[in-house]
Amino acid sequence: MNPPVDLMTVFISELVGTAVLITLGVGVVANVVLPKTKGNSGGWIVISFGWGLGVFAGVIASQPSGAHINPAVTIGLLANGSPEYAPGVAVSVASTLVYIVAQVLGAMIGATAAWMAHKKHYDEDADPIGKRDTFCTTPAIHAPIWNFITEVIGTWVLVFIVIAAGTIGDAEVPTPAGLGWLSALGVALLVVAIGLSLGGPTGYAINPARDLGPRIMHAVLPIPGKTGGNWGYAWVPVVGPLVGGALAGLSAAALL
Amino acid sequence: MNPPVDLMTVFISELVGTAVLITLGVGVVANVVLPKTKGNSGGWIVISFGWGLGVFAGVIASQPSGAHINPAVTIGLLANGSPEYAPGVAVSVASTLVYIVAQVLGAMIGATAAWMAHKKHYDEDADPIGKRDTFCTTPAIHAPIWNFITEVIGTWVLVFIVIAAGTIGDAEVPTPAGLGWLSALGVALLVVAIGLSLGGPTGYAINPARDLGPRIMHAVLPIPGKTGGNWGYAWVPVVGPLVGGALAGLSAAALL
Amino acid sequence: MNPPVDLMTVFISELVGTAVLITLGVGVVANVVLPKTKGNSGGWIVISFGWGLGVFAGVIASQPSGAHINPAVTIGLLANGSPEYAPGVAVSVASTLVYIVAQVLGAMIGATAAWMAHKKHYDEDADPIGKRDTFCTTPAIHAPIWNFITEVIGTWVLVFIVIAAGTIGDAEVPTPAGLGWLSALGVALLVVAIGLSLGGPTGYAINPARDLGPRIMHAVLPIPGKTGGNWGYAWVPVVGPLVGGALAGLSAAALL
Amino acid sequence: MNPPVDLMTVFISELVGTAVLITLGVGVVANVVLPKTKGNSGGWIVISFGWGLGVFAGVIASQPSGAHINPAVTIGLLANGSPEYAPGVAVSVASTLVYIVAQVLGAMIGATAAWMAHKKHYDEDADPIGKRDTFCTTPAIHAPIWNFITEVIGTWVLVFIVIAAGTIGDAEVPTPAGLGWLSALGVALLVVAIGLSLGGPTGYAINPARDLGPRIMHAVLPIPGKTGGNWGYAWVPVVGPLVGGALAGLSAAALL
Repeated sequence: MNPPVDLMTVFISELVGTAVLITLGVGVVANVVLPKTKGNSGGWIVISFGWGLGVFAGVIASQPSGAHINPAVTIGLLANGSPEYAPGVAVSVASTLVYIVAQVLGAMIGATAAWMAHKKHYDEDADPIGKRDTFCTTPAIHAPIWNFITEVIGTWVLVFIVIAAGTIGDAEVPTPAGLGWLSALGVALLVVAIGLSLGGPTGYAINPARDLGPRIMHAVLPIPGKTGGNWGYAWVPVVGPLVGGALAGLSAAALL
Repeated sequence: MNPPVDLMTVFISELVGTAVLITLGVGVVANVVLPKTKGNSGGWIVISFGWGLGVFAGVIASQPSGAHINPAVTIGLLANGSPEYAPGVAVSVASTLVYIVAQVLGAMIGATAAWMAHKKHYDEDADPIGKRDTFCTTPAIHAPIWNFITEVIGTWVLVFIVIAAGTIGDAEVPTPAGLGWLSALGVALLVVAIGLSLGGPTGYAINPARDLGPRIMHAVLPIPGKTGGNWGYAWVPVVGPLVGGALAGLSAAALL
Repeated sequence: MNPPVDLMTVFISELVGTAVLITLGVGVVANVVLPKTKGNSGGWIVISFGWGLGVFAGVIASQPSGAHINPAVTIGLLANGSPEYAPGVAVSVASTLVYIVAQVLGAMIGATAAWMAHKKHYDEDADPIGKRDTFCTTPAIHAPIWNFITEVIGTWVLVFIVIAAGTIGDAEVPTPAGLGWLSALGVALLVVAIGLSLGGPTGYAINPARDLGPRIMHAVLPIPGKTGGNWGYAWVPVVGPLVGGALAGLSAAALL
Repeated sequence: MNPPVDLMTVFISELVGTAVLITLGVGVVANVVLPKTKGNSGGWIVISFGWGLGVFAGVIASQPSGAHINPAVTIGLLANGSPEYAPGVAVSVASTLVYIVAQVLGAMIGATAAWMAHKKHYDEDADPIGKRDTFCTTPAIHAPIWNFITEVIGTWVLVFIVIAAGTIGDAEVPTPAGLGWLSALGVALLVVAIGLSLGGPTGYAINPARDLGPRIMHAVLPIPGKTGGNWGYAWVPVVGPLVGGALAGLSAAALL
């Protein structure tokens, strides 16, 4: 479908795609949580569609590299035994690292853009945990093992269905212009689904870069009255999605 | 479109697809109903889109077997006089049983996954009927005959439109990669529609496996403070959808 | 695309399609307005998506006749100068009447189905105007001339965009199986849009059959504590959409 | 895809498309904000989907000219180095002016249509700023430089992703009838995304014509009890989107 690409193209593509995803994803939580925004208290339907459609935009921005924009997807394809991450990009330690580093850096850029877009609302007097929640996930009930399981299940659904979808249809048939939108829509709706259905206990990181990158920026950016980064919990939304993605890749290889 | 498959493939495909559907479907009710979740009190729009997009994911996971993931669809195709349930799978007593058994078992697995993802919220002190409602349907007004009629009408719409959609277009034209997403989206939106419009009186089982499988798991799983399984009502969301599906198959044969 | 059809096929196709549309459309208002339903007070987003996705299902059910399921669409095509309403169906007085009669009868059937699905909730003690609102439209502010204008504008958008969409793409290219879903989705989203944006003053009939058929059934069905049919207003949601549809057909002929 | 067009066709196409967009966009804010409408207090999800689906309809109405319906898109394509704005329409000072003038005039027509559809609700006694907010944007926190940055970021996402989407797929493959709907859906969902995620601080003009045209009509139309036009702020939703669009065009040229 897409032409073969080199690792520099992968790096830029994943960086840009993840930055767009996180600009919109951190943005929607800021809109719902921060004081005085027009979307304040918009509810879970706003959060879920905001993150899902953030994926929609991010996938479109990231076509050349196959639009992983999530280390759990990259690791899932690795575990699945895929020969390539994208046309011309062999699976290797080097290419895996390029994907993941670009994703985390892109997430840091995106979090910064979302913060800039909501600057005056971050400067308002507000609950410090609410401010941090715009950047990274806090579980509804702190119970790391169960939070971990929730992240594993949510990410398993994401990566398993993405891999299953890749087996649909016949790659020999030429793809009409426009179907790239459709694949992006599919992944977007899947993320809406996971948010609506499995996002309640942990805030559904389901993407290590999505949680870690913004958590770093929360520590770095000059936000008045901010609280600590809850770093003791930070392993859960990193390791949980990686395990869920790997299990999805393995089970997809066995079941599909 | 898809290659011919054997009954073992059907079994796995329906099992996995229904498990994904129910993980997301039970999950969204848990998110809205159980205490302390981030989606608590998210409203009917969250419920309806959660179940509909659960179907979206389930259909993608279940392509090889034709993605019934619902005994009412299987029975509807039987009543419609379809020669095959999927490419290479003739309609017979044996194949019908394989579909239905896989669907019920898949629903039991999915309910368990959704319970695990929300474990700490099920452990909270909460209304026992609310906890049960996350697994299986309770009518808003208990009136079994009218509840039955509601389930028949809702399922008729689902199965009739699915069969009608299968008559659109020209199967001789090769299907471009990506259109599998589109069929899944179509069924998903149909289920969103039925939830929004016909789900209010009974909670729209419209799928015997969706109700029976989780009702069994509600009895089995160690949920603190749970109530009885309301088994006296359990025939309605099983028989109603089967009758609705059969009527849809017959009327589609007559009208389309 | 579709094979040529005769007028009996048109009659059945429009009857079934409009019945499905109104089952879901009347159903969603019943779910939001009637007491004790699970979707009670679900809000305007539920109403708008419920009606829009009702159109989605109705269009799929009504492919052979071109899925008008709305006299304003039929009149719009007439005013536009279309030679055919569907493949093999010439525009004539007879064919126009077949479309419109089938649509009104289908709407009456659909309203009856929606009432049956919500029977126990209609039997509850509730605001009589709320009960009537589930069947047919009541303006938010009674001002027939302005209500008429609102209906003209809403219907103009619907019919103009449907005609504009028909001019997109190249009919010589074979349509892959599955794109029928897509056209249905397009019209559905258009109706969601009109509901969200132009439905507030009058409840957006934008379809004479949608309002008149259920208004008749409201008079006929045995609903406890019902009020009058507000027949003095009934011309607005019939004539307004017809004028809007005709203006859309004429302006599409001039502008597109 | 579309046949070559002349500048008169461009003018009509952009005029009609932007008029449809603004009819629905101004309409949805009127529905949510003005007193006594059926969608009153419908929330941010209604606003975001209303504007996004307004873009859906506008894009369909505006296919011959490439459906810019936004000066920021036109300027973005100019900055991107595109040779043509649409088939047969070379980028030049004249064609750029035709696009932008048609967009602003179309927005003025659309705002008038939305006002007519809600006439009796504008005549109600209500907050004057709320009435103006239905026409043009007011920032949640008045801080022009930061408001400007928010508009730049939101528009950058819009125009960058639209350009990125245009690079997907292979234009040599014939486009089946129906995919025009799909492109319109893609842009619509992108605007929903930006509304949900980046619309909270400024109300997301992200389109100079969308803000300026209705602001002019707010001054002109006979609205009881209206307030001033907040013209001191009016440069932000004009210049911000133009800068964002230009930056998107430049960065797309560098990165994609």
